[in-house]
Amino acid sequence: MTLVGGGRTGAPDFVREDGVLAYVDVGDLPLESGVVLPGVRLAYETWGELDADGSNAVLVEHALTGDAHLAPGRAREHAPEVERTRAEAPGWCEGLVGPGRVIDTDRYFVVSINMLGGCYGSTGPATPAPSSVDPTGAPWGSRFPFVTIRDGVRAEAAVADALGIRQWRLVIGGSMGGARALEWAVTFPDRVRSCGVVAACAASSAEQIAWGQAQNLALRQDPAFRGGDYYDGEFPTVGLGLARRIAHITYRSAAELQTRFSRDPQPGESVLGSTAGDRGRYKVESYLDHQASKLADRFDANSYLTLNEALMSHDVARGRGTLREALARTRCDWLVAAVDSDRLYFPPESDALCEALPVPVTRQTIHSAAGHDGFLIEDAQLGELVARTVLSSTPAEPSRNSPITP
Amino acid sequence: MTLVGGGRTGAPDFVREDGVLAYVDVGDLPLESGVVLPGVRLAYETWGELDADGSNAVLVEHALTGDAHLAPGRAREHAPEVERTRAEAPGWCEGLVGPGRVIDTDRYFVVSINMLGGCYGSTGPATPAPSSVDPTGAPWGSRFPFVTIRDGVRAEAAVADALGIRQWRLVIGGSMGGARALEWAVTFPDRVRSCGVVAACAASSAEQIAWGQAQNLALRQDPAFRGGDYYDGEFPTVGLGLARRIAHITYRSAAELQTRFSRDPQPGESVLGSTAGDRGRYKVESYLDHQASKLADRFDANSYLTLNEALMSHDVARGRGTLREALARTRCDWLVAAVDSDRLYFPPESDALCEALPVPVTRQTIHSAAGHDGFLIEDAQLGELVARTVLSSTPAEPSRNSPITP
Repeated sequence: MTLVGGGRTGAPDFVREDGVLAYVDVGDLPLESGVVLPGVRLAYETWGELDADGSNAVLVEHALTGDAHLAPGRAREHAPEVERTRAEAPGWCEGLVGPGRVIDTDRYFVVSINMLGGCYGSTGPATPAPSSVDPTGAPWGSRFPFVTIRDGVRAEAAVADALGIRQWRLVIGGSMGGARALEWAVTFPDRVRSCGVVAACAASSAEQIAWGQAQNLALRQDPAFRGGDYYDGEFPTVGLGLARRIAHITYRSAAELQTRFSRDPQPGESVLGSTAGDRGRYKVESYLDHQASKLADRFDANSYLTLNEALMSHDVARGRGTLREALARTRCDWLVAAVDSDRLYFPPESDALCEALPVPVTRQTIHSAAGHDGFLIEDAQLGELVARTVLSSTPAEPSRNSPITP
Repeated sequence: MTLVGGGRTGAPDFVREDGVLAYVDVGDLPLESGVVLPGVRLAYETWGELDADGSNAVLVEHALTGDAHLAPGRAREHAPEVERTRAEAPGWCEGLVGPGRVIDTDRYFVVSINMLGGCYGSTGPATPAPSSVDPTGAPWGSRFPFVTIRDGVRAEAAVADALGIRQWRLVIGGSMGGARALEWAVTFPDRVRSCGVVAACAASSAEQIAWGQAQNLALRQDPAFRGGDYYDGEFPTVGLGLARRIAHITYRSAAELQTRFSRDPQPGESVLGSTAGDRGRYKVESYLDHQASKLADRFDANSYLTLNEALMSHDVARGRGTLREALARTRCDWLVAAVDSDRLYFPPESDALCEALPVPVTRQTIHSAAGHDGFLIEDAQLGELVARTVLSSTPAEPSRNSPITP
């Protein structure tokens, strides 16, 4: 594997560049399916500096449609303006990550990696296929291999290697990010000192798979999708928008939608039309239209499909015996947290994960009316949980397994 | 309004025909939107015989994709075989309706009406438009007006008139059928002695509207839908199938899906493909495929859209002040029941309905692991509730409002 772009290993040419996309060439990646994905490159960002003993690295894993930009950063002085603007842009996790925050970038070397198959810099379906696959260099499109959460995490180990991180002080994520964190702890037990699994579970449930299927079909049904080979034409934004609507409803709670929107019509629109096709919208419909169009503007449909499939495939025990047996190999401290109003990743699923862990772990609760998205919204609560458990210098619940000290 | 087909008013030519589709010509129907729908015909079925004083009629209202065939019946002796076969076919409510059942067809005259806009005999989008609208007699298609639950109930009053029913002994339904029953009680307070609102609420919630939008978009997005004018070509079965999948997940519960399907692959299929497009299915996906194809084989996409829009429009208080004010006009006894695991029509929505009624009514509970569909599955429990409340000869909870005696 090869570092590409800004080096971060403390090499003499090190320039502090926080929140700037950099790359690691992973090379050929053997996948769970038996397929080998050639020419894999992962995009990542970092904040802060790695300690001399490499013990202060924290990996924050993004969710389904997230990216590696956790928090604002700073590009090198003479970087192109676009790079500087991007580095300084707000990040999706800036409530937790930054100077003086719980995941303190003055203290920790914080890393985030765009998941394999994504569309924020890592190799994915929109990436030109290598010449061994397509001499014309057209995007992978429908040919992009099926990848699992485990495949993604195995690729990420190459980023850790390239950055000189033998063991993460903490790997943490919510939703699909939580699935990735859990896979890290099980696939590489010696490389994870603490693990945070937030609003996530040990294996995608039947209902999560069912919602995933509906989203994938919404995408595939868009005529613009053309089986996934649409890069030379119109993008399947309508199908992607519908997939997002379905997902977004599951990310919120009925009570929250009712409180915010009730049955109110969108201002200036009448909800009783003369035909079904000409009526105005309810406010909640306008809200979902907005969510759909926001995502369709920024996300690649094939990446959505690829990552959604990866999430549906999530089962940390696959090929590892029972869940308890799979988790027995872990050696980390844990934060397992659920949002009380989550109806996609129900709190009892987090309880089931806790019960199967080799050390006693109490499931923590994020209180929110918003449903699953509460893990993003209630960052103060999550920060407090992180500070009290996995980043506490005196853990309240000592593990029966001693964590490895680096 | 005119009776068409087998008359049921005790006229001298009365022939007992149970469970056979008959029709009432309603004529021109003014809709809430201000549009007048011309040439409305409603299809209905009956079981049993109407008392001389017309006091034993029970109306059972079907849900979104239901029809008027509640239970097996019997066609006239020399009816065409197709009519006899259809009459004798099982019905969706046969656990409650039949000789000796709770809604005893030896005692009650049971009626069920296909909702306006449906595709089981009543005027709907697939009906040829009258010559005033289209001289070629092509189906209404995209031109079919927007109708509300209230519009549907107003049309149904013509069926009651034609059958000589001044007051229903009971109007009852689940889900959209419950919305229809509630609208009956409020729109025609003198014509409803008892009302059963099962797994339904006073007004569709923000979340119910959100799911409705996703289903409608799934349908509209199918290229075969062609804006609703597809009757001369391929039917939009793919879009209708996706709409059904989305709906069906909301009709069940996460726990039930998990118990039945877990993450099991469909036998003979591998869920880790070489690409996302070539992987096999999970069992839960195969189950949803089956639900989708069953509905697409039997239901018209435009009717789905029309009735789904009607259900989204459901608000018994629209134009009637507060909910409490709207319900103050009702004069009936009530059964308000919710399924404990329902996550589409949450039990607290039934509580809110009870709290706004002018008489004290305790919300009843149907215990089921299945979610919303529990109202159909747990017919024994529902029957027991009906027998104990609205069809009890000695009601346990006397109303403050005396019910009208016919």
